[in-house]
Amino acid sequence: MSKGELTRQRIIEIAAPLFNQRGYAGCSMQDILRETGLKKGGVYRHFGSKEELAAEAFRYSLSQAVKIRTPPANSLSRPVERLHRVVEQFVEEPSPIPGGCPILNTAIDTDDGNPLLRELARKGLKNWRARISQIVRDGISRKEIREDVEPQSFANTIIATLEGALMISRLEHSRRALNDARASLERLIEGVSRVAN
Amino acid sequence: MSKGELTRQRIIEIAAPLFNQRGYAGCSMQDILRETGLKKGGVYRHFGSKEELAAEAFRYSLSQAVKIRTPPANSLSRPVERLHRVVEQFVEEPSPIPGGCPILNTAIDTDDGNPLLRELARKGLKNWRARISQIVRDGISRKEIREDVEPQSFANTIIATLEGALMISRLEHSRRALNDARASLERLIEGVSRVAN
Repeated sequence: MSKGELTRQRIIEIAAPLFNQRGYAGCSMQDILRETGLKKGGVYRHFGSKEELAAEAFRYSLSQAVKIRTPPANSLSRPVERLHRVVEQFVEEPSPIPGGCPILNTAIDTDDGNPLLRELARKGLKNWRARISQIVRDGISRKEIREDVEPQSFANTIIATLEGALMISRLEHSRRALNDARASLERLIEGVSRVAN
Repeated sequence: MSKGELTRQRIIEIAAPLFNQRGYAGCSMQDILRETGLKKGGVYRHFGSKEELAAEAFRYSLSQAVKIRTPPANSLSRPVERLHRVVEQFVEEPSPIPGGCPILNTAIDTDDGNPLLRELARKGLKNWRARISQIVRDGISRKEIREDVEPQSFANTIIATLEGALMISRLEHSRRALNDARASLERLIEGVSRVAN
């Protein structure tokens, strides 16, 4: 990386937790300047606008969260086990960027506008659901998961339960809701499994 | 109500959807003045600060949501049926105040501060969970619900799944995730029921 690219990446990494914790409206360019120690021109050389920086910060936050959420694609592991791992990894290690899940935060934060960020959150959610749905489809074709399970609906329920539990856990400063969600989703996964454990 | 009380209530009702949609940082006192058509003094006569107005707006938004979420306490209806009603009402009529669930919004929005709003959201969540837990306990004592169900955990899972699904549905402008959550929670409730339907 050139010096300019390094600076650009450093700004993104500093901005990511600020936007993720405070939201778009709650994080000003002044906050970014203070945290980076850069002058206005130093930031605007790399990003045309606050929205552009927020979009890059979101992409970075999401990529970090996806790493955590994606169990290693080990072809040896069975689909049902991989679903359990999806739940376990989310519950045990929600997100490496302070502020919780970037999709959840951005979805709530951009309710009244910011179409660019909203579109990024939508894509992030879609990809996450696609990864989980694919595991379910694999399970169905290997006859490990019941055929009457609708992969997208099943993925939606897993994501909804995890995200809602994360919200509760963060509000209450307690892991209780995440652990409850995990127990409930484990039963849900076992309930559609055709493999005796 | 006196004229002053009427004005105060009108300000709250106008501010409620603004805060619920835009968040605390995203809604300025200027926005409130513009929407109410009042002068600064006209609002500050009734509310000492933006935080105080936001707190009253939250209480109002939540009270409206609670009305929707609380099925009529009909002593004739069975606990299992009442749990189904809790899910159904949330899915069919999420919240009368534009912007979605005030607890979810405030929980995400106040991550980095605003302890007063955060405390109100925490209480709102606690009360909601208490209402659902009580239905579960009633079900257990009437032998309609299995004894090994932990009421608070069960309530947490219902709330998490509904709130997460609401987030997805709002992000995608589609009812799909809410309907998926409903189907999944209906199976969950039937799974702990000791009553044949």
